[in-house]
Amino acid sequence: MSIQGKNYIGFSLSSQNDQTFQSYVPALNIYLPEKFHKATMDEVSRAMELAAKAFDEYALIPATQRAGFLMAITEEIMALGDTLLQRAHQETGLPLARLQGERARTINQLTQFAELIREGSWVEASIDTAIPDRTPIPKSDLRKMFVPIGPVIVFGSSNFPFAYSVAGVDTGPALAAGNPVIVKAHAAHPGVSDLTAQAIVKAAQRTGMPDGVFSMLYDDGFEVGAALVKHPESKAVGFTGSYKGGMALYRLGQEREEPIPVYAEMGSVNPIVILPDYLKNHAVQLARTLAGSVTLGAGQFCTNPGLVFVTETENLDIFEENYKSEISNVPSATMLTSGIQNNFYKLRDELFAQENVTELAVSESGSDEQNQSQATIARVSGQDFIANPKLHEEVFGPFSVLVVCKNTDELLEAVSHLKGQLTASLMADAPEAAKYPALLQKLSQISGRFIMNGVPTGVEVCPSMHHGGPFPAASIPFYTSVGRHSILRFVRPQTFQDWPDVLLPVALKNDNPLGLFRLINNKTTTSAI
Amino acid sequence: MSIQGKNYIGFSLSSQNDQTFQSYVPALNIYLPEKFHKATMDEVSRAMELAAKAFDEYALIPATQRAGFLMAITEEIMALGDTLLQRAHQETGLPLARLQGERARTINQLTQFAELIREGSWVEASIDTAIPDRTPIPKSDLRKMFVPIGPVIVFGSSNFPFAYSVAGVDTGPALAAGNPVIVKAHAAHPGVSDLTAQAIVKAAQRTGMPDGVFSMLYDDGFEVGAALVKHPESKAVGFTGSYKGGMALYRLGQEREEPIPVYAEMGSVNPIVILPDYLKNHAVQLARTLAGSVTLGAGQFCTNPGLVFVTETENLDIFEENYKSEISNVPSATMLTSGIQNNFYKLRDELFAQENVTELAVSESGSDEQNQSQATIARVSGQDFIANPKLHEEVFGPFSVLVVCKNTDELLEAVSHLKGQLTASLMADAPEAAKYPALLQKLSQISGRFIMNGVPTGVEVCPSMHHGGPFPAASIPFYTSVGRHSILRFVRPQTFQDWPDVLLPVALKNDNPLGLFRLINNKTTTSAI
Repeated sequence: MSIQGKNYIGFSLSSQNDQTFQSYVPALNIYLPEKFHKATMDEVSRAMELAAKAFDEYALIPATQRAGFLMAITEEIMALGDTLLQRAHQETGLPLARLQGERARTINQLTQFAELIREGSWVEASIDTAIPDRTPIPKSDLRKMFVPIGPVIVFGSSNFPFAYSVAGVDTGPALAAGNPVIVKAHAAHPGVSDLTAQAIVKAAQRTGMPDGVFSMLYDDGFEVGAALVKHPESKAVGFTGSYKGGMALYRLGQEREEPIPVYAEMGSVNPIVILPDYLKNHAVQLARTLAGSVTLGAGQFCTNPGLVFVTETENLDIFEENYKSEISNVPSATMLTSGIQNNFYKLRDELFAQENVTELAVSESGSDEQNQSQATIARVSGQDFIANPKLHEEVFGPFSVLVVCKNTDELLEAVSHLKGQLTASLMADAPEAAKYPALLQKLSQISGRFIMNGVPTGVEVCPSMHHGGPFPAASIPFYTSVGRHSILRFVRPQTFQDWPDVLLPVALKNDNPLGLFRLINNKTTTSAI
Repeated sequence: MSIQGKNYIGFSLSSQNDQTFQSYVPALNIYLPEKFHKATMDEVSRAMELAAKAFDEYALIPATQRAGFLMAITEEIMALGDTLLQRAHQETGLPLARLQGERARTINQLTQFAELIREGSWVEASIDTAIPDRTPIPKSDLRKMFVPIGPVIVFGSSNFPFAYSVAGVDTGPALAAGNPVIVKAHAAHPGVSDLTAQAIVKAAQRTGMPDGVFSMLYDDGFEVGAALVKHPESKAVGFTGSYKGGMALYRLGQEREEPIPVYAEMGSVNPIVILPDYLKNHAVQLARTLAGSVTLGAGQFCTNPGLVFVTETENLDIFEENYKSEISNVPSATMLTSGIQNNFYKLRDELFAQENVTELAVSESGSDEQNQSQATIARVSGQDFIANPKLHEEVFGPFSVLVVCKNTDELLEAVSHLKGQLTASLMADAPEAAKYPALLQKLSQISGRFIMNGVPTGVEVCPSMHHGGPFPAASIPFYTSVGRHSILRFVRPQTFQDWPDVLLPVALKNDNPLGLFRLINNKTTTSAI
């Protein structure tokens, strides 16, 4: 397969626009030759109308066939082999080993959704049987399950060219649930997106899915994305990226005549709180673990730990010395785009311009030509942190602030000033943690995932993962964007009242042919009726 | 107990404002003597801050004790006896028998939530156990469950003084989940609201709930409600009422710095489609059933069937004659408020002013002095209906439009123009219904509840009920406002990673002391780990 550079309107290619852009290679500061055609407003409309039409057909395709479609996507992605990995490496600057891992995660995500819909219980079927002779009025037969909602818009994300992009955490569950997907490719990796789109289209064609079940459009600006969110046929939006970008889309989704959910996962500073005894006993190991987490992938994770809270306690000096030396040994790394690199240095310098912020540790300064970052740790007192909200904000990249509090009271106060976070970590053994119930509750209230004695980087793809969190970590804190329950973003409940068994959806039929877990008269069971 | 007329700021009464209003008795066109103090902005702030403080304590109270609180509310409501029913009768004009039934439903709703949280599986606990020796990286122990979100604002609704008001469908699940509630009492029944608030406060005090777990404020305008929705401590809003009111609140919730969900259930026209054979065979019975549903409770239900679609077929004349005579026999009934009555006649007359809309049936014209309505059926052709979106809109009251289509093709086209609905009904035997798959799919796509051979009025309170629907029936179509799953509007998922068993919430502990249904390593089970 070769890169086409044209918009995928269902199974057809389209390049109405003369405006094109090219892939940038951040590690070499060059552009690759292929041209990508920015979509026109007409192409946006055509993709959306085709998706709306495809929805009528796609929603009725049995789950086993939709599962076959998802598995075919995994096969077609793997069939792209090294071509895909090499292109991703060029476009993102991420190491091949990391990209191989991310591709595996993407395949795993799609496979999990195929398994989920094959098994089928995820529709949460609920049945209340009729009581015709009830007084004063008879009780109807009521049956409820989740059904798809319609076309879903997916925004590719810069920092995960596979797992959070064209065939990633939004596309997988949206397709699994029975919704067509329209992807706005991320301009930082259009070639990867193009190849992945081809894989999806090929999979759709060979498994007999309707034309329009998948489309993908290009833009290196904001116009196409905005038009997709505003289109009347759009029913939901998935996005992972910055607060600014996420909220801009969220507001567009709300300003429509028919508001639609824009599920924006917008990152956070992921505070880590280290209690005194734990610091005393694990100073050296903590320094190593934190330095590794802060600098992993050049710090370009939404789960990067941007704030570490400690108290003035025994062995704090040893911790700081080790943290400093660990960070100083971190090699420079190319960032995803020159924009991200510029922004990293800009925000870092702004933080250092704040009162009483000092530099605790830096790595070697990288090559600017190669868009490299310099791992950096700032240091500030608890009082100064509390007084300055600017210090509570995310600096995307290998950067973290060490907040040194006088004591655990000040630490609790500092933590109380934090907004919603994807994660919070507490470093403490159980007996020490148990001494601080107010701190536990505060960290719990602000976090989507509360970690004990671990760092936030590394998002396991499993049912118990919640990747999201109170605002502003996520625009809508009620859903995860990772794991099986992320499918709930793209379905609505529907009730069927007094339907004849022959016409009911298979998940709601009396004899439970799929053997699903169902709630029957308020009891969970796999029995037939 | 006597009516206080003051704002309930937690357990304290407050009446800062000199501005007051009184209860209006629609059936007598008089005002009752008690004065209700409109809340000030200071009282709004105090209620919200007290709620935020109460949340820290209330969220940690064991579910069995919260269940005890809910049951105490039911006891205190019942203890109000006839005083409550009589006041509701005066303030709403609704018959005592209906109010008795609604009170029973309200008690039932609260009891169901008490049972739900006592049993406990509703938190949807999910556990993925650790794999410490997994390569390349170990797998953490991850455990997820639903947790409360914080203060919830509830708007009382005019047409259900009990079931959708102070202790109704929003308050029950919000309190059950562990959230404080702040009610904006509906100005159409402030006395009922006052008495109910006293019952809740008494129940909270005698079951040891924190001060601020419940507050209630008065306003006969929009200022207090708007301030509650905009307050930074508010985390979600429940509302049942008009499209205009619901969307105004929804927009306020979205324009905040931190957007919050405003779950507005805004009613709909609830189309009923009658297929030709069914009409032919059941003309007389259908006329009686429809007339009963259209005029039930003076048509003041969000599930009132405002549109009935038929085709020009055998026995249509018999159906129309019977429909006419059934409607003409309906006695006049007092509407909830003079505003609702005025609006009913205004909208009805606007519809009759549309081209080619004729009058099929009317009941006796009621007393205007007593705010009575006149049951009315309009008639229009399928073509005229399709051409005029004005005819697709709700007229709140005992009113319905009979849309007579040339044939089932035209009927399908007419139905295709409908927006989202709480319900859709299809009158057809299974073999006839099966002949129209496109019609089935269309009605399915637009409806929250799809009924076969039944009318939409009567909302069963059970797990399989979905009361909501695609926009504009509901502002957020992903949740029901009735039944156990309505609790999901007021909780968010949270993950606990690598927590010591001793510190975990009880629902997530290894030995499953509550015997909950949990998802363990992706399998549903009640086993311990």
